[in-house]
Amino acid sequence: MHKEFRAGLIGVTGYTGMELVRLLASHPCMRLNFAASRSEAGKRLGEHYPFLEKRRGADIVIDPPDAKRATARCDIVFLAVPHGTAMNFAAELRGEGLPVVDLSADFRIRDVAVFEQWYATTHSQRALLKEAVYGLPELYGEAIAKARLVANPGCYPTASILGLYAALKHGFISSEDLLIDAKSGTSGAGRKAAVPTLFCEVHDSFRAYNLGKHRHTPEIEQEISIVAGAPVRLSFNPHLLPIDRGIHATIYAKLKGEPSLDEIHAAHVELWKDAPWVRVLPKGGLPETRNVRASMFCDIGLVLDPRTKRLIICSVIDNLCRGASGQALANANLMCGLPMDCGLEQAPLMP
Amino acid sequence: MHKEFRAGLIGVTGYTGMELVRLLASHPCMRLNFAASRSEAGKRLGEHYPFLEKRRGADIVIDPPDAKRATARCDIVFLAVPHGTAMNFAAELRGEGLPVVDLSADFRIRDVAVFEQWYATTHSQRALLKEAVYGLPELYGEAIAKARLVANPGCYPTASILGLYAALKHGFISSEDLLIDAKSGTSGAGRKAAVPTLFCEVHDSFRAYNLGKHRHTPEIEQEISIVAGAPVRLSFNPHLLPIDRGIHATIYAKLKGEPSLDEIHAAHVELWKDAPWVRVLPKGGLPETRNVRASMFCDIGLVLDPRTKRLIICSVIDNLCRGASGQALANANLMCGLPMDCGLEQAPLMP
Amino acid sequence: MHKEFRAGLIGVTGYTGMELVRLLASHPCMRLNFAASRSEAGKRLGEHYPFLEKRRGADIVIDPPDAKRATARCDIVFLAVPHGTAMNFAAELRGEGLPVVDLSADFRIRDVAVFEQWYATTHSQRALLKEAVYGLPELYGEAIAKARLVANPGCYPTASILGLYAALKHGFISSEDLLIDAKSGTSGAGRKAAVPTLFCEVHDSFRAYNLGKHRHTPEIEQEISIVAGAPVRLSFNPHLLPIDRGIHATIYAKLKGEPSLDEIHAAHVELWKDAPWVRVLPKGGLPETRNVRASMFCDIGLVLDPRTKRLIICSVIDNLCRGASGQALANANLMCGLPMDCGLEQAPLMP
Amino acid sequence: MHKEFRAGLIGVTGYTGMELVRLLASHPCMRLNFAASRSEAGKRLGEHYPFLEKRRGADIVIDPPDAKRATARCDIVFLAVPHGTAMNFAAELRGEGLPVVDLSADFRIRDVAVFEQWYATTHSQRALLKEAVYGLPELYGEAIAKARLVANPGCYPTASILGLYAALKHGFISSEDLLIDAKSGTSGAGRKAAVPTLFCEVHDSFRAYNLGKHRHTPEIEQEISIVAGAPVRLSFNPHLLPIDRGIHATIYAKLKGEPSLDEIHAAHVELWKDAPWVRVLPKGGLPETRNVRASMFCDIGLVLDPRTKRLIICSVIDNLCRGASGQALANANLMCGLPMDCGLEQAPLMP
Repeated sequence: MHKEFRAGLIGVTGYTGMELVRLLASHPCMRLNFAASRSEAGKRLGEHYPFLEKRRGADIVIDPPDAKRATARCDIVFLAVPHGTAMNFAAELRGEGLPVVDLSADFRIRDVAVFEQWYATTHSQRALLKEAVYGLPELYGEAIAKARLVANPGCYPTASILGLYAALKHGFISSEDLLIDAKSGTSGAGRKAAVPTLFCEVHDSFRAYNLGKHRHTPEIEQEISIVAGAPVRLSFNPHLLPIDRGIHATIYAKLKGEPSLDEIHAAHVELWKDAPWVRVLPKGGLPETRNVRASMFCDIGLVLDPRTKRLIICSVIDNLCRGASGQALANANLMCGLPMDCGLEQAPLMP
Repeated sequence: MHKEFRAGLIGVTGYTGMELVRLLASHPCMRLNFAASRSEAGKRLGEHYPFLEKRRGADIVIDPPDAKRATARCDIVFLAVPHGTAMNFAAELRGEGLPVVDLSADFRIRDVAVFEQWYATTHSQRALLKEAVYGLPELYGEAIAKARLVANPGCYPTASILGLYAALKHGFISSEDLLIDAKSGTSGAGRKAAVPTLFCEVHDSFRAYNLGKHRHTPEIEQEISIVAGAPVRLSFNPHLLPIDRGIHATIYAKLKGEPSLDEIHAAHVELWKDAPWVRVLPKGGLPETRNVRASMFCDIGLVLDPRTKRLIICSVIDNLCRGASGQALANANLMCGLPMDCGLEQAPLMP
Repeated sequence: MHKEFRAGLIGVTGYTGMELVRLLASHPCMRLNFAASRSEAGKRLGEHYPFLEKRRGADIVIDPPDAKRATARCDIVFLAVPHGTAMNFAAELRGEGLPVVDLSADFRIRDVAVFEQWYATTHSQRALLKEAVYGLPELYGEAIAKARLVANPGCYPTASILGLYAALKHGFISSEDLLIDAKSGTSGAGRKAAVPTLFCEVHDSFRAYNLGKHRHTPEIEQEISIVAGAPVRLSFNPHLLPIDRGIHATIYAKLKGEPSLDEIHAAHVELWKDAPWVRVLPKGGLPETRNVRASMFCDIGLVLDPRTKRLIICSVIDNLCRGASGQALANANLMCGLPMDCGLEQAPLMP
Repeated sequence: MHKEFRAGLIGVTGYTGMELVRLLASHPCMRLNFAASRSEAGKRLGEHYPFLEKRRGADIVIDPPDAKRATARCDIVFLAVPHGTAMNFAAELRGEGLPVVDLSADFRIRDVAVFEQWYATTHSQRALLKEAVYGLPELYGEAIAKARLVANPGCYPTASILGLYAALKHGFISSEDLLIDAKSGTSGAGRKAAVPTLFCEVHDSFRAYNLGKHRHTPEIEQEISIVAGAPVRLSFNPHLLPIDRGIHATIYAKLKGEPSLDEIHAAHVELWKDAPWVRVLPKGGLPETRNVRASMFCDIGLVLDPRTKRLIICSVIDNLCRGASGQALANANLMCGLPMDCGLEQAPLMP
């Protein structure tokens, strides 16, 4: 029997905070013991989130964000605050010796110049940046287990990197000319009051945004460059879906040589066979966002287009669970010495 | 050939303003000549509303709200501003001699005490209130044609009053114990940035709000009392639908005597046979909000429940078109001596 | 440590079958060991339901529906087949000595004449009907624990009965003139190929159906009559929501005497304080379907309308989990001597 | 004043038939005079389509599909029947001398071998194929005006060709390596009863289908090859959106040379300045499907990605109106000598 770990969450009111609260409510070895928000401090968590009443965590009283208080009550802390803010909380908490999982972008980009260019901000915690481990468990599981600061990946990067990984590693595709057309559910846009994400502005409509300049681009390039063994520049293009949860990345890659679909598919199945959360669909199968709803799964569909000599990879995740809070929990599990999928075993919600 | 009337619209950025802009873009005898908004003044209308580009009205430059400017450029003015604000614009515009259609609640309630109680505000234009005509064309068409100030009905009242009218008038139902369970699309909640109407808060969910205390209650009671010939107190209960447009009022009424469904249905068909926009469905038919989308129709379905001795009336409208801006346009047509349905002849949009 | 029970499921392809498969995939003490379907026999369950791959149950090969096979492989069987069909499977399985949870309507109505009238079919298993226990755990928990055949309640009745229970029991409301305006997500319409439930026919629309004559009416009346201690005839009126899951019952009741909202609310809180799944919202609170998504919760909001002397009760459940398969699992838990909420502890899915 | 043309419609029950019925209900110079369907013959059109009641066309009685009857009652006929079936109706109607607009794919592909390969069927009307004009008014307006048989373009090709036209024609982009990631509303999947397009299978989900092998591919290649002046092979990849109407094509093209966005944008504005329905968004603007809802508009947004040396073109239409029935009506207008946009002047429906 594992000890029970006490988790803290700074930034409880956004969709990623909400998701972490949900997951921790039934985690067998970790429980929320500190929840912080500037705007909601003083409220019971169950009052702020009626869905949580009669579930574990409902009676927690929301604290103001404060590293000292967190230290006194937690074994590990999740940061679900905006980039720029997270880095300073991380420094304080690490100063107190606490392990930290940061859901913001602050520690994802190893090259501080790249970070400062894309995020148009100065990185105030460069020393800490060196310590951070990129929290994609399939790629960095061992390092995560030893880490004290984990940079939780972005939602789009999670889908994109897992989608590209096997084909690149096996050399089936070129690392040049990679193109990702990605679509995300609206929870990815956050929980701020804003006209463009009102129901009547999103429902029954569809649009692109930030084409070619989304901040997840350098994060994907960083990790894909490592897999490819050479610097990769790719085209990343996001769109907004009128759904709550889900990311669908359609990845277009040029074939190297003339591998058959059988060969490519078999290599994917083999590479991911021990990964509990990556599911390579049968040949001919294409993933759907609903099949991974509320889960850690990344579903991958493979199409060989002989006419244009491309491999098309569809990679699908839940942006809130796998793309944010579930993955943060998996990282925390590893950091605490728990089984990676502890508290994350539920089947996806259908329909 | 009719002359072309120049319309003004004060309050162009909300959903009702948007709908009026849309309808006026193809009105054969009326065109938008003045559009006002505090926050967007100076912008081309087509810049603010990309859907409008290459349609009539796109090149109008938004003005600040100002009665003098409106007077100089308009034959008639629509007010799509919040209650409390509208009454003062109306007074100014009427002072300049302009006919006004007010989409707010300011002139709907004849009894100023009732207004002030439900809207928790003081009515500053009591004299003008006497002049106002309630703009439900099926009931007040003649008065509207002569009016200079029309109080455009609320969306829920439009559906509720039209739904109840024939059965009450014919005495098939009691005016006691009337109960309306109403459901509205989210555009009814307006276009303000607010967390409760974000996509992820409304989509794939359903909830009631303001049960028993919605401000449309006294408006419905006022008009139903006139039909019933005696003061009516009824229960009105709204709910929020995850759809853009549409109101569905399910109206529950106690039968008086033992009328047959044949009898009730025939009386409805007869009463509404010359009304271009009220459609009594065949016996057994039930209305759907999509069947009236973007139109002036009010679809009425009738169910006799012999077990509980009730008549159930389903009354369905488009809250933005029939329940607000389309009806405002119909009223303006009448005030200008145009055919009532001028510019409102399109079939509903399906699907 | 409990033994692991082997569950069978006859009727695996509908939405209730799908939900049971999902819930059993992570049940700590019960696992699916037999899944049957006429149309899909021979397929792996994971092939039929890609969401299930890499979860427990994915490798089960679907069998044809057959009581003998079920007997050989199961400790308990769930029937998720149409009414009329279920009664015969139940008889066979009971003949083999197996405990059965029937999700159909076949054993819900104690009075066979009422059943035969509303369902327009002959009941072929009248003897068995006497043995059946109505599976609403809050009302019949002890009997369910001893039962060998449980009639799993309908979705609308679950929301309606739980909503009305406390107010009726305490005598706050009259049992006459009860009116239920209910709204259900589209999964309640089943998974048959049919034009009226196509996406484009349901999305962005809303409509009523079967007003005054839905088959859940006598089921609600049966149970409410028991609570009221006298025969109750009520008006039940369903509507179709463009959401996947969720039922919202708005219940209108006449007050008896002049109880205050404080009094009514306190009595509800007290009555349900030990019920793990009934959540009485704070005064002024109204439930939302999303707050109970994928859970066993029934959220209850109370509104006193002094103008019309009514108590309005909003009762909200997830129609697939609480209203069908989750409740079936809770009943199975009780029948097997497991804790009632075993495998049903997850927090609702938000957003 | 134009004479009034009598239109026939064979295939009235699908979404394209429904849309044509809607548009013809308010066309000033053309009215539906014959509507045919095998399954619904004998019904009033208003009975089949309640949205149409009290609109022109509601009293038409649906006929069985029959070329002779159509000839007796029509000046022009629309075919909204499946490919394979349409070609034979077209031959019969042309034999009777009637002008025909065919909404199916039967006459879109000039190279019969290509048609037969992609559609896996034999073309039985090769002679007629030579006579057919591809009905994209911006490209073939003059030929359409003289045509007697118009092949109405597919929805995806309409968005794709209009999106690519100016950039290719001006030589800003290479015709090699073109990649289209397209997303369509569910009405594009037709109105057949089928599980994969049920509400609960599509709502709150997203998926790709037919990647690299959709039948609209050769149609796009045919027209793009003409623009490019050389055979083009491109990658076309469709996805299914949980919305009713709308196509969003995200088109990725390699730049030729180093044109600036200013230059590219200005050329687009210039090329389309007299096209009433193509709207080039301001620099930085991106289109949304809702902005073209229920209209003939094609909204084009342009993004230059200097990092990957690509031009990204977002081209958005309403798949039912511009992508099918509205375009068919525009073609019929031209064939009848009417103004192209007659009956198609309405502003898009927002929201």
